[in-house]
Order: sequence, then C-alpha cells, then structure tokens
Amino acid sequence: MHARFYAPDAHATGDVVSLPDDEAEHLTRVLRLKVGERVIVFNGRGQAFDAAVESARRRAVQVRIGRASEAAPEARVAITLVQAVLKGDKMDDVVRDAVMVGVTAIQPIVSTRTEVSRASVERSRRQERWQRIAVSSAKQCGRAVVPVILDPQPFDALGGLLDQRRLPSPALMLVEPAARVDALSLKELGGSTPKEASLLTGPEGGWTPDEVRIAAPWCRFVTLGGRTLRGDAMALVAVAALFAKWNEY
Amino acid sequence: MHARFYAPDAHATGDVVSLPDDEAEHLTRVLRLKVGERVIVFNGRGQAFDAAVESARRRAVQVRIGRASEAAPEARVAITLVQAVLKGDKMDDVVRDAVMVGVTAIQPIVSTRTEVSRASVERSRRQERWQRIAVSSAKQCGRAVVPVILDPQPFDALGGLLDQRRLPSPALMLVEPAARVDALSLKELGGSTPKEASLLTGPEGGWTPDEVRIAAPWCRFVTLGGRTLRGDAMALVAVAALFAKWNEY
Repeated sequence: MHARFYAPDAHATGDVVSLPDDEAEHLTRVLRLKVGERVIVFNGRGQAFDAAVESARRRAVQVRIGRASEAAPEARVAITLVQAVLKGDKMDDVVRDAVMVGVTAIQPIVSTRTEVSRASVERSRRQERWQRIAVSSAKQCGRAVVPVILDPQPFDALGGLLDQRRLPSPALMLVEPAARVDALSLKELGGSTPKEASLLTGPEGGWTPDEVRIAAPWCRFVTLGGRTLRGDAMALVAVAALFAKWNEY
Repeated sequence: MHARFYAPDAHATGDVVSLPDDEAEHLTRVLRLKVGERVIVFNGRGQAFDAAVESARRRAVQVRIGRASEAAPEARVAITLVQAVLKGDKMDDVVRDAVMVGVTAIQPIVSTRTEVSRASVERSRRQERWQRIAVSSAKQCGRAVVPVILDPQPFDALGGLLDQRRLPSPALMLVEPAARVDALSLKELGGSTPKEASLLTGPEGGWTPDEVRIAAPWCRFVTLGGRTLRGDAMALVAVAALFAKWNEY
C-alpha cells in the first residue's frame, strides 16, 4: 500500500502538481521518499490518483498524476457534526474521530458552557489547526474527501444557519440522560433515511436549559442509552449509531 | 449530584462498609470529603445506594449505606468485548471507552500482531490496571456494574472459550475494509436481537489471514463501512453501531 498525500490541485491524469508544504515535508522528511517513487494522492473533493514523485526538495514536492485510484467510499448520509468546542486536545480528538468515522463537515460552535470564548477560537487559529487535523485523519482512514471545518459560530446563530440551509436538516440534538429533556431514542426517531442531517453534540457539562429551549423549534432531541458519555466521545458514538440506524453499516 | 464511589461490600441499607484503598484516597485526598457528607456508592454488581461518610482517614474510609439509589441502566444486550491487546495507553483508552458505552465484560487476547507478549501482559499486571480503569470509568458514566476484565488469553484459545460458553455466542469478528474477507454489513447480518454476544476487535494492523481462517468456524465476519478505523476506536464504533442495530438506542 503506497503512502497517501493530500494534493488539492490534483484533478487530471498527466498533470504535474505541487503538494502543500505540510504534505511535502511529510513526504521528504518523515517518509524520505525519492524522485520516481509511487504514491497515492487525493484532492480532498473525492478524487484519488496513483502518482509518482516528480521532484522532491524539503517543502517543494511535485508529483505526476497517474490513473484514478479507489478511495474509501463516502457515507450515504452526509452528516454535518455541529460540535460545541471542547477544551484543548479534546476538540482535536473529536475532529480526528469524526473525520475517520465519516462525517461530511464539522461546524464548531461556542455554547454557554464552552470553556473557550469565540474570540479566542478565532485568535488562536484553531480552525486552521482543525482543518489540518481533518486532512491528516482523511489520509489515515482512506477517504478522498477532506471534510470542511466551517467558521466557528455562536450557539445563537444555529437557528438562522438551519433556516438558511447553511446547515442541513433534520437537525438532531444529542442530550444527556441527566438533562431531563423529553428526548427520543433512535428507535423512536423512526422514519426513512435522510440524504443529509445535522448532529449537535454539546460541551463538557452539556447544553444549558436555555440552549435546549432555543433549539427546540429547529431540533429533535435524541438520547443514547442511559449511560453518561464523555464529551469527547459523544460525536463518535452518535455518528456510529446513526450510521447503523440509517443503513450505512 | 453527589460523588460516586465503588464499594464492593455494599449490599444492604444500614450496613457500614469500608471503601477500597483507591476509593478511600479519592474521597479523602482528591475530593476532601468529611465525616457526615453524602455520597453515592455502587457495588459493581448492579446495586447503588445513597450513603454517608462514617469515618475518613486517608486510606481508611467507612460509609454508612442508606437507601437504594438509581444507576444508569445496563444494556439489554450483554456484549463481551474480545479485544486484541493494543500498545500502551491505547488499550487503557479502549477499556475506558468500552465500559462507558456499556459492554458487560472485556476479554483481552494476545493475537499475532499484538505487539505485547502474553507473558509481558501477565508480568506487568496489566489486567489489574485495566480493572482499575473499568472501575474509574463506571464511576464516571453512572453505571452500578463494573465490567469484569477476564484473564488475558492467546488467540488460539478463542474457539474453546466459545465452545465452552465461557464467551457468549453469537461471536462477531470485526474485519477491516482492507482485509478482503467475505464480511457482512450490519444490515446483512439480519436476525433478531440476541441476549448476549461476543465482539472481536483486532490489533493495530488487523487480524492475520491465519487468524481469520481459525476464527471462521466460530465467528461471523462483519465490517463497518469502507473507511479504515483506528485500532483504538474500533470497539467504541462497533459497540455503538451494534447497540443501534439491536434497539438499545
């Protein structure tokens, strides 16, 4: 199995394209590949190709695009994970895991109990960092699609984003057993498999009662068993469970 | 919400019981609780109680058992996770996550690609360590049951353990998309919800072709979508998906 690299400019056999800096470094410094060696590249939008290293100097690598190559299939249901930003490394782990399991996009939101302010999320370039993690996870799990990390938003913007279809409906808000909200189990959720959906997962400490109230006109509340899930595990458990319900597995 | 402690001797209202050393330290040194304070204790076998601190000195804590208290419900399907031992902290994470999501027992196995020998697993008291992690995870997720960590076994013992019903059937072996084994998706698995099941999840690098061949008489092979899951995420994804299929969620 050849190493996989993200090459956003790859789209046609025969082209010679440059790799982004991070990818070039991975190729030259970590894997120490030389001119002529075979690799696989994917453009992040669903196409993958066999390729060969055409030139390789530290952060300047070009590859020649060969034949189309197979990548891991995308999920039949396009789930946008709407994740309340978690502390430190935990949000990184959620992004990594969500990409691995197969979400289509990630919308970070700053909710009341998020312990990071929106200004701080923007100042610290966390969005760029999460996007790099998404690339890295796509490389490992075999996808040719890199899920987009959307601009972080405050919780209050959610209704508008759903109304404007900038986030897909139906929107399912995961609530904890302790939340005492009138929530449905997945089997009670019923219905056919949608083409797309938003899944809202909360911060450590969960949603506030106000947030639940604000979300009610747009969201259906769902719960997963009676055991309390860690904040950084909710998205993975919920996406896996929804994929099973929606015939992805 | 009062703090939860593991008190294996708790079984009747009115009794005064000692906490294990680790739990006593957690109560006195981390949470700094004093005599008279209210706590919740669970005995690891399904019972939880309100309780009050009766005496508290470092590693010597006694609690007086009060009324029965509610705990998180156990899953309707008792899944034994048969997990090939993963490197270092990753196995710790799998134990923690599997307990959180709701498995009933964990059977560590040493497979060909496990990078730890069985002798080393036994020598290093890893089983005790995993059992402590199971206690800690049960405390956090609200369960009154502490899943048992079974004695580590070599892969070749699996058939015998299943034949002797020391591991429950049906046994489902999770295989990777790259394994090219004739595996079923969950929807192809069909059938009714079992009372119990074994779920076999492999090491980094997956099962060897020999292991797949050896397992064939006992196991059904299942696969979860076409994306490659990390070794330390397989159990969580698979249990969540099986719970969704089996109407637990």
